[in-house]
Amino acid sequence: MSEINILGEAYKKAKHKVPGHGPRNVQVLKDALIDIDGEMESEMYGKGNVIDDFQEKMAKYLGKESAVFFPSGTMAQQIALRIWCDQKGIKKVAYHPLSHLEIHEEDGLKELHHIETILLADKDSVIQLEDVAGITEDIACLLLELPQREIGGQLPEYKTLEDISAYCKEKGIKLHLDGARLFEILPYYQKSAEEVCSLFDSVYVSFYKGIGGIAGAILAGDKAFTEESKVWKRRHGGDLISFYPYIVSADYYFDHRVGKMNQYYQETKEFAQGFNQCYGVSTKPLEPVSNMFHVHFEAPKEEMEEILASIYEETGIGLTSYVREVTKTTSYYEVSIGDLYAQLPKEDVKKVFQMLDEKMRSIKTL
Amino acid sequence: MSEINILGEAYKKAKHKVPGHGPRNVQVLKDALIDIDGEMESEMYGKGNVIDDFQEKMAKYLGKESAVFFPSGTMAQQIALRIWCDQKGIKKVAYHPLSHLEIHEEDGLKELHHIETILLADKDSVIQLEDVAGITEDIACLLLELPQREIGGQLPEYKTLEDISAYCKEKGIKLHLDGARLFEILPYYQKSAEEVCSLFDSVYVSFYKGIGGIAGAILAGDKAFTEESKVWKRRHGGDLISFYPYIVSADYYFDHRVGKMNQYYQETKEFAQGFNQCYGVSTKPLEPVSNMFHVHFEAPKEEMEEILASIYEETGIGLTSYVREVTKTTSYYEVSIGDLYAQLPKEDVKKVFQMLDEKMRSIKTL
Repeated sequence: MSEINILGEAYKKAKHKVPGHGPRNVQVLKDALIDIDGEMESEMYGKGNVIDDFQEKMAKYLGKESAVFFPSGTMAQQIALRIWCDQKGIKKVAYHPLSHLEIHEEDGLKELHHIETILLADKDSVIQLEDVAGITEDIACLLLELPQREIGGQLPEYKTLEDISAYCKEKGIKLHLDGARLFEILPYYQKSAEEVCSLFDSVYVSFYKGIGGIAGAILAGDKAFTEESKVWKRRHGGDLISFYPYIVSADYYFDHRVGKMNQYYQETKEFAQGFNQCYGVSTKPLEPVSNMFHVHFEAPKEEMEEILASIYEETGIGLTSYVREVTKTTSYYEVSIGDLYAQLPKEDVKKVFQMLDEKMRSIKTL
Repeated sequence: MSEINILGEAYKKAKHKVPGHGPRNVQVLKDALIDIDGEMESEMYGKGNVIDDFQEKMAKYLGKESAVFFPSGTMAQQIALRIWCDQKGIKKVAYHPLSHLEIHEEDGLKELHHIETILLADKDSVIQLEDVAGITEDIACLLLELPQREIGGQLPEYKTLEDISAYCKEKGIKLHLDGARLFEILPYYQKSAEEVCSLFDSVYVSFYKGIGGIAGAILAGDKAFTEESKVWKRRHGGDLISFYPYIVSADYYFDHRVGKMNQYYQETKEFAQGFNQCYGVSTKPLEPVSNMFHVHFEAPKEEMEEILASIYEETGIGLTSYVREVTKTTSYYEVSIGDLYAQLPKEDVKKVFQMLDEKMRSIKTL
């Protein structure tokens, strides 16, 4: 099956990579530790300065009363939904059909918490107020993922968020934010994290997407909520004796990158334009609203792998290590922009788009 | 409440500490990283050399077909029991009344997996064959914790383990090893890890007890079992993108300390003798069978805190930062021996026991 790896191999060899902040290697941890005193004490099972300080810092940043560090968003979000369900005595929640909980968690929410789900909106659209208002059953919580990652990172209008928030408050439905990429959308909304989070009862954020840390998440809300989340964290096996390797790096890269989200956003829009000028290529969303988008090709996966590999070899620019099939004749991949983009030789990027346009035009089937 | 901290403060100030390998601080991580190339790639969601290699190494060491890295024993063991329950179609397991699952996990096994438990043996004794043979209901799995930590780290005779294993095999009951301190008991049994593990269908070991790593666990068994455990790991929110900070340190300290378990065991026996020569003091077990034991005082917690604090001040030796109440007139603390013990000035340790004996004799109530 050597053919399958054409693209992956070409990507590996490419002198410049486009996505992210650089390789996910041990240096990421070493860099975060350089200025940390070896005598700094580990926290112990959620107690101690290193975790307390970071939780307080994040609670303040998100404008919530309290915040708890979790090993993963998967754990944090199942627990958030469980708490809201228990509080209301209704084991039912609503979210998007392509929510992380629905497609990436082996049905943990159902298997472990026995929570039923209502899928809102068409899978290619973001959730609108009408979708929420159209729910005919009683639910404990609505989860909104901002941006909706699996459809290229799309966002509703901010007004829609405000309306949904007001509607949920009126109906006694808790509103939870899947903010895996919350930092990344603030420049588009031109809002602070605190402003966005004020629309939600509970919030999860991640530290290894735009922030580029190693792993880990924060779950924030009022104190009663976060205290209950700690009990569930222990039940899930997530109350580790020491999280400091993750916390120290989350804190380090948060400080380094949270201020660069507008730069990533502007670069992402610029990069998307390049694709949209190519024949048979378009981005979703057409104009990105964060540091991510999907590139859709009107050509089959295998053909695109060959085309892209040849472009990497010629230009030294590696766009992606994979392409996924959409239909037999179309394919896509996901872009997320970080520190690496600013270092790309712009002339070579221009050449990438020239070559891509030419090669797409030369495909007979188009 | 300043009085409460007398012992903790004296312990902090003590020049030499007895328990463990040293402070749980960031230096523990830094030391483990020194020889690791910064270009070493992180694993991604359970896939990659750093996790594959360690899992293979541990599977081999434990004599099992396959091994999976977990963030915690809490997660690994709930999942092990769930898999065995699902396989047999019976949601019932048996373990000791002071099992970690029963007293330290906020009932995760019951709350998340809805598994019923049967508590075997008196809480002050280890489980014997008769206890297992006396179970009148059908169970999917028996969990044995070796050593039984909450009663000072006691062990059954090895013959008992063999008999229980044979009995379970005959009855179609899966046998799971809570081996949080498995490495630590091998010198007493004079068996290899592989030999002990061959008696069990599934095994969990920890890397931050005797090994002294940062956090993390291994769950081992046959391939079908470990593959299923990965699905549940994801459901629990334990399938992190990167575990390498834990894995690299687990591997490093495993290599450094797994060969020192006999040294710790011999030192532990020597140390326990010192306590047992003191008036009103005894250890449980009387002769330790691992690197741990409990020290029981025939004096109330508050009185012992004052006595111990004065001993630390006089000798510079810190024994423990806490004492726990057993009854109004008795108390105890837990000892676990690691690298620090060999560095203690033996004359000062002798003085500790002389002072302890004198002070215990001078208590009027004894």
